[in-house]
Amino acid sequence: MAEVKSDIEIARAATKKPILEIGAKLGIPPEHLLPYGHDKAKISAEFISQQKGRQDGRLILVTAINPTPAGEGKTTTTVGLGDGLNRIGKKAVVCIREASLGPCFGVKGGAAGGGYAQVVPMEDINLHFTGDFHAITSAHNLLSALIDNHIYWGNEQNIDIRRIAWRRVMDMNDRGLRHIVGSLGGVANGFPRETGFDITVASEVMAILCLSTDLKDLEKRLGDIIIAYRRDKTPVFARDLKADGAMAVLLKDAMQPNIVQTLENNPAFVHGGPFANIAHGCNSVVATTTALKLADYVVTEAGFGADLGAEKFFDIKCRKAGLKPDAAVIVATARAMKMNGGVKKEDLGQENVDAVKKGCANLGRHVQNVKKFGVPVVVAINHFTLDTEAEIRAIKDYVATLGAEAILCKHWEQGSAGMEDLARKVVALAENGRSQFSPLYPDDMPLFHKIETIAKDIYHAGEVIADKSVRDQLRIWEDQGYGHLPICMAKTQYSFSTDPNLRGAPTGHTVPIREVRLSAGAGFVVVITGEIMTMPGLPKVPSSEKIFLNEQGFIEGLF
Amino acid sequence: MAEVKSDIEIARAATKKPILEIGAKLGIPPEHLLPYGHDKAKISAEFISQQKGRQDGRLILVTAINPTPAGEGKTTTTVGLGDGLNRIGKKAVVCIREASLGPCFGVKGGAAGGGYAQVVPMEDINLHFTGDFHAITSAHNLLSALIDNHIYWGNEQNIDIRRIAWRRVMDMNDRGLRHIVGSLGGVANGFPRETGFDITVASEVMAILCLSTDLKDLEKRLGDIIIAYRRDKTPVFARDLKADGAMAVLLKDAMQPNIVQTLENNPAFVHGGPFANIAHGCNSVVATTTALKLADYVVTEAGFGADLGAEKFFDIKCRKAGLKPDAAVIVATARAMKMNGGVKKEDLGQENVDAVKKGCANLGRHVQNVKKFGVPVVVAINHFTLDTEAEIRAIKDYVATLGAEAILCKHWEQGSAGMEDLARKVVALAENGRSQFSPLYPDDMPLFHKIETIAKDIYHAGEVIADKSVRDQLRIWEDQGYGHLPICMAKTQYSFSTDPNLRGAPTGHTVPIREVRLSAGAGFVVVITGEIMTMPGLPKVPSSEKIFLNEQGFIEGLF
Repeated sequence: MAEVKSDIEIARAATKKPILEIGAKLGIPPEHLLPYGHDKAKISAEFISQQKGRQDGRLILVTAINPTPAGEGKTTTTVGLGDGLNRIGKKAVVCIREASLGPCFGVKGGAAGGGYAQVVPMEDINLHFTGDFHAITSAHNLLSALIDNHIYWGNEQNIDIRRIAWRRVMDMNDRGLRHIVGSLGGVANGFPRETGFDITVASEVMAILCLSTDLKDLEKRLGDIIIAYRRDKTPVFARDLKADGAMAVLLKDAMQPNIVQTLENNPAFVHGGPFANIAHGCNSVVATTTALKLADYVVTEAGFGADLGAEKFFDIKCRKAGLKPDAAVIVATARAMKMNGGVKKEDLGQENVDAVKKGCANLGRHVQNVKKFGVPVVVAINHFTLDTEAEIRAIKDYVATLGAEAILCKHWEQGSAGMEDLARKVVALAENGRSQFSPLYPDDMPLFHKIETIAKDIYHAGEVIADKSVRDQLRIWEDQGYGHLPICMAKTQYSFSTDPNLRGAPTGHTVPIREVRLSAGAGFVVVITGEIMTMPGLPKVPSSEKIFLNEQGFIEGLF
Repeated sequence: MAEVKSDIEIARAATKKPILEIGAKLGIPPEHLLPYGHDKAKISAEFISQQKGRQDGRLILVTAINPTPAGEGKTTTTVGLGDGLNRIGKKAVVCIREASLGPCFGVKGGAAGGGYAQVVPMEDINLHFTGDFHAITSAHNLLSALIDNHIYWGNEQNIDIRRIAWRRVMDMNDRGLRHIVGSLGGVANGFPRETGFDITVASEVMAILCLSTDLKDLEKRLGDIIIAYRRDKTPVFARDLKADGAMAVLLKDAMQPNIVQTLENNPAFVHGGPFANIAHGCNSVVATTTALKLADYVVTEAGFGADLGAEKFFDIKCRKAGLKPDAAVIVATARAMKMNGGVKKEDLGQENVDAVKKGCANLGRHVQNVKKFGVPVVVAINHFTLDTEAEIRAIKDYVATLGAEAILCKHWEQGSAGMEDLARKVVALAENGRSQFSPLYPDDMPLFHKIETIAKDIYHAGEVIADKSVRDQLRIWEDQGYGHLPICMAKTQYSFSTDPNLRGAPTGHTVPIREVRLSAGAGFVVVITGEIMTMPGLPKVPSSEKIFLNEQGFIEGLF
């Protein structure tokens, strides 16, 4: 094997084309590309609205098994498949999420793919990029400031200051902000109250931006945000503080999708980044639907494993945006199968075919789950250099027993040359028109019944348990007209169950609901099972310690 | 008089040229202009470093009398003078500060000039612009997060958590964040402590960015920031937490000056925005020095009135960057003279020559002060439509008695056509080589003596009073090697004295020092007289309520 280069070295050595050329490949005229430097651009809202009525290309979802510390490479595979489709003569666009800034300074790990399947400029994408997340932070915190300001000046809306649901956000891993008492210091600073900060990707504004179809829709949804309750329990909306207009102004540019390129100079739309936990975790609706108008194939990914990510992609994003995916790719690795089969991380370098076979149960469950949505499935085995032929064979044989195919992919090492087989298979699946996509549950199913359906059909749980207060809350929302909303599950990504240590394919487990939250602007009900962390912390030795500008002014230490 | 258009209407009707054309006027090749859309760009650090050794153009400072509620139009005059110089055949660049986002949603008032003397695109400049302030917010808050994280993981540096000097910042008017208790909620969230947020422009990171000569200098200054003290009173630096490298990475793009254009398609560098109160309040050193390499004339402004803004421009920015201003323009208005002469705001529409004459004392003091720095002075009378000939005559006659000239300027109404006289006068002053600039006090004067020099020579105070603790602190800093630093005065901008209601030209007053702060990274000692507000609040009816996107997608309500 040749010397292994780091992701940032490979990215820096890339021969990038001017972004106007990349846009031209998709027929976007230069005046509709708003450049950010020479290698990033936004696609104008005007151009996007002009594409209405054009036929859509094929939509391919890339999802994965439950993540393990071994790493699966979902984004890498998404980027590699996009390049692979272009290689075999299809006009393909990759649609992925933007990276959150905060975590970059915590633990290493980029969000722009890896090896020879990356989007560039990776440093920019992982840092400020085109400022979308900063705009979301500003819009969110403007609303926060308006709430305390409203109370300060007389509280005309009679907001109950103990029942303010809207916190503040920052795109930083800062545990010291999770729980604060604000407005201290006397009369001039307002009325002291408990509150806190979430990381920006966890903001409902982020989810709204990613689900809105245009600026009008965005403004309406921003107005629909429930910020607090009055003493009589009636909700106070962002609209009641006249915040929606100014918030939409702050998000005007951020709503326009970003176009960059892969290492092989193919177009990639990097836009939106809702937390895959308390939100739906997908690339923006505007980016995906625009890409579908411009390309034969759109390859997009969903957050976490298929139990969380694909389910929300289908039941929230596709349902709401009217998208019909033509095929799904489930990413697996021999290493992850071994971990699911009980092997420890330090022993992953050893061949262990039995562990692979045992761990395949997790993969099998995901394959069968995705099929429940009527979408044809193929498994991508993301190749790692120490994988053995026998291990790969074991996965392929297992997947064949499910009536599907597993294809070895070497995009990390070879770029699109290692992706031809999967690309051809995806085309075959998509073009035979077998996809009969439909969401898991209908809109008019009662909210608790929707939760049970996900828990039983996708997680294979035995039962869902919830306090009377949770059930009552769901019923109140149904009475208020929110019963038609889909469910956004917040669950550990490491297991089908709510126990992160339960690998494989457990059945008959119990799903306890701790809390339910209404995201009235985004348009879903968040169901929280177990602890969820909406503001991460930094590790003992943060990676920021090793990030710096070298003598040439290049960034070092960022992946 | 024709129908008066709003600033945003005039700005929107502007015929903008592509920013690459504007850059070409200054000889900046397209590959060294990093576009942000088609009407904004950053100038590459590489191009800037290539200009070293070129001859500098002339530097003109625009400053003003003490601000009054009548409005003086300092930025408007700066922009108008730039256009005026271009009109009479000089290659001129305007260098102004960027706008802070937060205040846009509070009280109306733009930061991009007004009438027919504006820089465009004004909406962008007043909102996210090229993301510089967001980058500063991120860099500042990364350091904040690293401090609490360091303590959380064992506090190797023995930081005294009662003596942490570094707060957090947000670019929002949010009084609820002025004073908080953070890290609440139990063991996982750290050690509870009092802290708070300032607005981003008040960050020392902002001051550092504006005074740094290049990325190396920036990184060094970031490392020099004092974040806290140990139990033994020794300072803990940002460098001790290895924060400087990652902070510089976050600021890499923000360090590159932004180029936009005036309504008359002349280049304007809009870069940096340090609070004119607790910082020095000028356009960045990088922007100003780069402009001087590319133009015959650079017109720049300083914050507030000349007692604060010009003094800091001369004693901090020019001293540190080795700049030698060739002339200074002091902006005054007949309205402001009347207010200084005792007229109430509601009576400003009435002619009152006696009040103008009486109020001229304030202007006269500023003229004489600026001359103390060896810089030739001209007064610009920014014309308002209700000014009478007799009032203008009174100002002109008064200024003539000081051995200077006052020139009526109609740039707000006419653009550069109303600015020819001032432009010619400025050229005459600058080109006769009369400027003998030197700062007010030498580096090696003791810190307290520097403060007394400013108070007596500029404010015409009788004495400076300070507690022993303040004097001791200054001496400790001198012992630690900070005695050579200049002073950054924080004082009310409304008066030469520390009493905002004392207009005119008071003498013999007392300057009480409440507190001193060391900005070791920026490189100055902040001296606080009276209350200073580092986090503003919103008014009862914030202007955000009237800001929205209209049917065409244009921003309404922003000025």
